[in-house]
Amino acid sequence: MNNDNDLFFTKTQVEEIIKTYPTPFHLYDEKGIRENAKRLYKAFSWCKGYKNFFAVKACPNPHLMSILKEEGMGADCSSLPELLLAEKVGMVGENIMFTSNDTPASEFVKAYELGAIINLDDITHIDYLEKAIGKIPELICCRYNPGPLRGGGNVIIGKPEDAKYGFTKAQLIEGYKMLKAKGAKRFGLHTMIVSNELDPEYHIETAKMLFDLVEEIHKKVGIDFDFINMGGGIGIPYKPEQKAVDLEYVGRGVMKAYEEKITKKGLKPLKVFMENGRMVTGPFDYLITKAIHHKDTYKNYIGVDACMANLMRPALYGSYHHITVLGKESTLHDHKYDIVGSLCENNDKFAIDRVLPKIDDGTQGTKSDILAIHNAGAHGYAMGFNYNGKLRSAELLMQLDGKVRMIRRAETVDDYFATFNFKESKFAKK
Amino acid sequence: MNNDNDLFFTKTQVEEIIKTYPTPFHLYDEKGIRENAKRLYKAFSWCKGYKNFFAVKACPNPHLMSILKEEGMGADCSSLPELLLAEKVGMVGENIMFTSNDTPASEFVKAYELGAIINLDDITHIDYLEKAIGKIPELICCRYNPGPLRGGGNVIIGKPEDAKYGFTKAQLIEGYKMLKAKGAKRFGLHTMIVSNELDPEYHIETAKMLFDLVEEIHKKVGIDFDFINMGGGIGIPYKPEQKAVDLEYVGRGVMKAYEEKITKKGLKPLKVFMENGRMVTGPFDYLITKAIHHKDTYKNYIGVDACMANLMRPALYGSYHHITVLGKESTLHDHKYDIVGSLCENNDKFAIDRVLPKIDDGTQGTKSDILAIHNAGAHGYAMGFNYNGKLRSAELLMQLDGKVRMIRRAETVDDYFATFNFKESKFAKK
Repeated sequence: MNNDNDLFFTKTQVEEIIKTYPTPFHLYDEKGIRENAKRLYKAFSWCKGYKNFFAVKACPNPHLMSILKEEGMGADCSSLPELLLAEKVGMVGENIMFTSNDTPASEFVKAYELGAIINLDDITHIDYLEKAIGKIPELICCRYNPGPLRGGGNVIIGKPEDAKYGFTKAQLIEGYKMLKAKGAKRFGLHTMIVSNELDPEYHIETAKMLFDLVEEIHKKVGIDFDFINMGGGIGIPYKPEQKAVDLEYVGRGVMKAYEEKITKKGLKPLKVFMENGRMVTGPFDYLITKAIHHKDTYKNYIGVDACMANLMRPALYGSYHHITVLGKESTLHDHKYDIVGSLCENNDKFAIDRVLPKIDDGTQGTKSDILAIHNAGAHGYAMGFNYNGKLRSAELLMQLDGKVRMIRRAETVDDYFATFNFKESKFAKK
Repeated sequence: MNNDNDLFFTKTQVEEIIKTYPTPFHLYDEKGIRENAKRLYKAFSWCKGYKNFFAVKACPNPHLMSILKEEGMGADCSSLPELLLAEKVGMVGENIMFTSNDTPASEFVKAYELGAIINLDDITHIDYLEKAIGKIPELICCRYNPGPLRGGGNVIIGKPEDAKYGFTKAQLIEGYKMLKAKGAKRFGLHTMIVSNELDPEYHIETAKMLFDLVEEIHKKVGIDFDFINMGGGIGIPYKPEQKAVDLEYVGRGVMKAYEEKITKKGLKPLKVFMENGRMVTGPFDYLITKAIHHKDTYKNYIGVDACMANLMRPALYGSYHHITVLGKESTLHDHKYDIVGSLCENNDKFAIDRVLPKIDDGTQGTKSDILAIHNAGAHGYAMGFNYNGKLRSAELLMQLDGKVRMIRRAETVDDYFATFNFKESKFAKK
């Protein structure tokens, strides 16, 4: 959410929560997540079997994944721990798509055991998978990287030809021939070429590209497709002036393309899959943090008790995340601050030159202000590191009934030390 | 180390190690670390009480810190877990400098309990510290941020005025007055304005700037200094064409400045401190990883079993890290590869368009090649995250006797799940 008025909680509620759970913490909104998931599924209700495989890496929390499962989502996994998380929440079988690259054999084995849809990243993985699991699964998918090809009016952003992922078109044709010869019976076609994209046309163009490819491969290889997976990449509006993607519009656009390029051409009906992560959980989480210091040197700083370990996007990409000073939504915004964490890196800043109301840090007799950093629910907790000895925070969920439940505890110093053996004599406590 | 000939191990040794510890892992060189530490101390042997406080964040491993302690180093800490690490290895009292910013009160308390030298980041922290620990310690230090001031011929890189750290000069004068009035008896002066800097002049100029400031503050506030801390920032040569900083040259340059600006001016003798991290451990560790895939699409890729979770600098900063294909040091380097990890981010690449000998990935009847990624010992393991469910690797030490000891075990899936409570009924195993 990108506006002070978007908060799903009041200052009073947060003050109450802080009595039990000290700041900083992530606070997720079950209601928001569910309503948004329903919107996505409604936009594709024309498509039998439509499914969004939640990109687990965006927010690998099993409690949230359980909610998404109830809303009909599957899991897009790309590592063993992500597969195990999906298994824990009962997302198994074809509710998992395993889209990995440079994959260790052991992860193919686990994916196969779970009955996941295996999405191959490279033509060499056909033999590699066969060797790993002793066969080619009946249902198999390949990932397409269009590279510099932009035929058919497709709009492809970025430089797919610099991406490590996927098959070239020639490899794709060759690959499906091999897979067919090796006994595969059902096929999927996948691509993932945009990230955090707000223009609905890009997503529709991707579907068009895949539908065209389905026809081409059908003709050249003689196979039908069970599904296409358009990838994820539906963006979210981080900045106040940005607008959310109109999901209905995307759904209608893909439907039109489907009718034109699949139905009218007499191709076998297929399912449309997606693997959105960011738009599923991103807007429905706020990083809640307290102002603990102010500092005026060459600039004006407010130090908070969260740091880039809790949300790295601003430090890493210079990304904008809206910040609300709770209870001061209507106060004159006339102070310019850098909002910083305590990590010993100068890029540990949640905002640079941000115009906000005057923030109290609690050191001058006034109460500390509480800040809510928006859109922290995707690639937020997930990307946190322990650099500089920083510990990752708790994750809380505000349930449909308004109650708050801890869905991940905060890390402790013991977690930080878990991979050491301090029993050696030189570390013995006096 | 930035050259294929710099390795402290042979291919045979590594193959032997891999039998016990599977790749990927960090492999540190005790001999190299010790010899380098001795070189640094020798360069400053003219200075009574010279000490390098190892920047713990660069490589927070207590086993390595124990070695550094034996070589005379202290610990530069900036968080509670780092203080606890120093305590574990017996670096206490004035062997710790606590240089933090946006500091929680509890961390000041712990630093004070350990007898650490507390280095204040901001003038408001004088009151804040006094409130936190009930007094101003007898020995106290302040961090200077020169901002746009570049008087006296000092060469300051970057834009210190954009950095969140430190006091302005006016605040420094005011701050020491306050500290003196509050009963502080011994004083330090600190700055940290360069990072990974290979030009020895920068480091000498920083010392000059601080010596001048010692004189100015002495005159204006009437205090003497126990020490200056020049900060860290001595760079290491990552690229083959770069040369290591001549420590002797820096030592002599600082000595000359000391004689001119401290001794000749009749100022009270003081100690010179530093807080290098990168140059202490960085060159003496290799990330050892195995080639597991090759891929030819729009470019040629070699997939390895390490990923950016084990070393983020190439992905994060596009940093060059030299790569040696073990046993192929003298083989014709005629293949251009992207060396990639399996993380589901396209920037998970250890090298882009790197010219190397032909690499075997073990999928074509040949043995997998083992790659050694150089200079992984600082901001390497330390910055690793668990994004995408990636687990952090083990750290191994080759001891002086040539034996290999595990100084940190690899993370397991259980570590990754440690902050969840899977006992809730919905997660119960069938």
